[in-house]
Amino acid sequence: MNGAESLVRTLVDSGVDLCISNPGTSEMHFVAALDKLQGMRCVLGLFEGVVTGAADGYYRMAEQPAATLLHLGPGLANGLANLHNAKKARSGIVNIVGEHATYHLAHDAPLTSDVAGVARPMSDWVHASASSREVARDGALAVQVARTPPGRIATLILPADTAWNEADAPALALAAPARPACAPAAVKSAAVALRRGGRCALLLGGVGVREPALQLAGRIAARTGCALLSEFNSARLQRGAGHVATQRVPYVVDSALALLKEYTHIVLVGAKPPVGFFAYPGRPSLLAPPDCEFSTLATVEDDIVAALQGLADELDANTLAPAHVAALQRPALPTGPVTLEGVAVVLGVLIPPQAIVVDEAVSSGRGLGGLTQCAAPHDWLTSMGGSIGYGLPVAVGAALACPGRKVIALEGDGSAMYTLQALWTMARESLDVTIVVFANRAYQILRGEFANVGAGAPGQRATDMLTLDRPALDWCALARGHGVEAGQAADLEAFARQLQRGLASDGPYLIELLL
Amino acid sequence: MNGAESLVRTLVDSGVDLCISNPGTSEMHFVAALDKLQGMRCVLGLFEGVVTGAADGYYRMAEQPAATLLHLGPGLANGLANLHNAKKARSGIVNIVGEHATYHLAHDAPLTSDVAGVARPMSDWVHASASSREVARDGALAVQVARTPPGRIATLILPADTAWNEADAPALALAAPARPACAPAAVKSAAVALRRGGRCALLLGGVGVREPALQLAGRIAARTGCALLSEFNSARLQRGAGHVATQRVPYVVDSALALLKEYTHIVLVGAKPPVGFFAYPGRPSLLAPPDCEFSTLATVEDDIVAALQGLADELDANTLAPAHVAALQRPALPTGPVTLEGVAVVLGVLIPPQAIVVDEAVSSGRGLGGLTQCAAPHDWLTSMGGSIGYGLPVAVGAALACPGRKVIALEGDGSAMYTLQALWTMARESLDVTIVVFANRAYQILRGEFANVGAGAPGQRATDMLTLDRPALDWCALARGHGVEAGQAADLEAFARQLQRGLASDGPYLIELLL
Repeated sequence: MNGAESLVRTLVDSGVDLCISNPGTSEMHFVAALDKLQGMRCVLGLFEGVVTGAADGYYRMAEQPAATLLHLGPGLANGLANLHNAKKARSGIVNIVGEHATYHLAHDAPLTSDVAGVARPMSDWVHASASSREVARDGALAVQVARTPPGRIATLILPADTAWNEADAPALALAAPARPACAPAAVKSAAVALRRGGRCALLLGGVGVREPALQLAGRIAARTGCALLSEFNSARLQRGAGHVATQRVPYVVDSALALLKEYTHIVLVGAKPPVGFFAYPGRPSLLAPPDCEFSTLATVEDDIVAALQGLADELDANTLAPAHVAALQRPALPTGPVTLEGVAVVLGVLIPPQAIVVDEAVSSGRGLGGLTQCAAPHDWLTSMGGSIGYGLPVAVGAALACPGRKVIALEGDGSAMYTLQALWTMARESLDVTIVVFANRAYQILRGEFANVGAGAPGQRATDMLTLDRPALDWCALARGHGVEAGQAADLEAFARQLQRGLASDGPYLIELLL
Repeated sequence: MNGAESLVRTLVDSGVDLCISNPGTSEMHFVAALDKLQGMRCVLGLFEGVVTGAADGYYRMAEQPAATLLHLGPGLANGLANLHNAKKARSGIVNIVGEHATYHLAHDAPLTSDVAGVARPMSDWVHASASSREVARDGALAVQVARTPPGRIATLILPADTAWNEADAPALALAAPARPACAPAAVKSAAVALRRGGRCALLLGGVGVREPALQLAGRIAARTGCALLSEFNSARLQRGAGHVATQRVPYVVDSALALLKEYTHIVLVGAKPPVGFFAYPGRPSLLAPPDCEFSTLATVEDDIVAALQGLADELDANTLAPAHVAALQRPALPTGPVTLEGVAVVLGVLIPPQAIVVDEAVSSGRGLGGLTQCAAPHDWLTSMGGSIGYGLPVAVGAALACPGRKVIALEGDGSAMYTLQALWTMARESLDVTIVVFANRAYQILRGEFANVGAGAPGQRATDMLTLDRPALDWCALARGHGVEAGQAADLEAFARQLQRGLASDGPYLIELLL
């Protein structure tokens, strides 16, 4: 058994059974090991950002780390932006990054770079295997790191000779630590604040926006009258009919300030004190009023469900019916010209039960959340790291994790361009993803931000850098080029028809929605 | 004047007049400054790898650094692979990377990352401006670094408040140092080796493969009978009729070993001792025989032309006609099924005078060089860093640098997928680029490498990771989706017709060549 084989067997024995790959020469022994051994599903991405983003989406839905296979420093570099998003989403990923043979590094061949240096900013753990006999142990460690709650980015650098030289047995799987329980004092302190009255809110993050945490939060709200907020972005928010609804802290600083000024005390449950996505001249970084008190019931690493259960016990809320439970609403399908409100209503009516919605519609997407609260129950995934190009790859990963569920990817035309190669992987793997591209032919969010930062009205040169017209992208052609069927919608009737068509198919379908 | 305006004025005063951009919120004041001030051409890329690769191509042809504008750590990360290629090509680039306002960093907003850490592996110089009053001076320093021969990667991190706060005047341009002259002893020593006879070669790199260095090398070869070799890759190789031809050290290790075993002494002129692109089990890293002697006439940083002139003087070769001068050959256009030899003949006949050929055809491209030596005079650009996805962006930059010259981009279908968004920038800027996609529907090079590393014959799972079929990419649809006209060729007549059509147009045209 060579090093690569010992590593693949260790990964499989540790429960990692999906490898999303974009390999090169230095990874050929690892590919050969994947070929020879059983137990690892292999999925090819034609760009590394697709690979790492798919691993993020897979973890969010499967709660299991996937492995990625990347080629040297530049291949890892291409995957970094979506590793940044995955790290901020607290997704567990095991990156296997090929490297030159140890003895070849001194010769500074063209592809030589500081692979560990490239990995470090977007990894929680980086290690380069020193010999083929250590690769298995290093692999078991990497999986253990990735599984450490709530999930971490482990990057294992695999010099080619450590893959092809002789190794011993695979390594035993290493157990990941459990989530720490929160301190009883934190429960008491949150209960005191909520009982004291005033305008209180729970701000939920991490698994706090999933069941069973949501039901517990709903009971606490029923007992105390506190509001239930969620962070602007969530790795995976469970919502729709039957779920306890939360109010999302808005992206726009003035809207967030207006919402949060209502509160005198915010209990943090897997969330951090809310902060602006960006700083703006004359606006604060912190979004809560200066006299708002915070208490931390649980960090994102802690056992959030147990903490909420403890708080519900303390408040004697266990027998109450949860507050803020969303009820199914089925309005008539709207007609006429495309409006974002109309699009939201169509989505709300047509989102199938247990669908997974991946939202990267950026400026177009902000209004969609509120109006789809009363759809069938579904998961809503957003970008935790804010680096665009996360959506199509995360949709790939979500579909790989949940083959029985419909995935709907909502994409801005600007953001979809960063990782459009994901369409090909959807086609190859026949993934059940319906993509809606909001084609406003601009970096629309930046047109707003140009004004928000006080830069005035854009002239021609700035406008050219904020618009995607001249030429307009043809998303139906781009989809077909990647082997994905597509159609266009220019009004709400056509959008509903196209969405029904996409959802009726078992494979990928792209809708270019003209705004 | 705010910090951003002081920086833009400094860049323009320092001779940087092209900014290739993919901006975000934190760069809006810089965009506003580009909008307000005169003298900087702005070009938008829809993915950061396009931006950095275009800056590489621009430097190779213009011998002037362009600025890039990138959004925070993840935006820079998306541009790293092509910065790796640019660094290895010794291209000068000034990266302006936006960052959160200095006071916002402590709050760990979603897009917060270690920007300097991301920059460092692929930069020669990294600096974060501390205040708006230092930005201009930092910008002048960045340009000086980028201009330091033969060219360096300077990354200036611009926190948003250093862009929007008040600044003083722009900074004065700083002169870049001249190339160091090589030591007289190096000239003497090379002359002694060449006079001694035996099997000698000059191995040329850097500007050693351009005029006037090539003519000098040809005279030295005429005097001494030495061979003229060039590195496997060259940032910009001048070749074709009238130029002194060099023999390229092959990529395949066994072929390189067979070529280099002929030589007892190699004089390095802007080149390094040849080393394998990758290590392979049982094959050496160094490609020259162990008893081959090396002497260094000039490093890639040195004044290579002066060094060759000194050597020609020492050898009394100045009055000789250069050896190895290529003569124009115009064979008949071949017909019939597509073969790589036939494609090379078509290219050789149709490459227009002063064309710029960007070669990223990978496995298909290796045979094209030799058979196009006798085409009209042209420049041939290859990837110095080996990270694929360099070709289309470098073609963008070359076309921006040389508006009067035809650019031909030779692309593998696998490699073109990494940065296909470059097609849109070609369409928007009406760049005169004809793209040939060699559609073998595989990572063909890896099919060879799988065997080369001794992994045997690939099974189904490995084959799936080395092939791009299921579904086949439709390159004509992909081109049209980006606003680029396209056509397909399935035989050599059609290829010649399509190439003539592309070259006759003033804008971009893509040919999908079916292999």
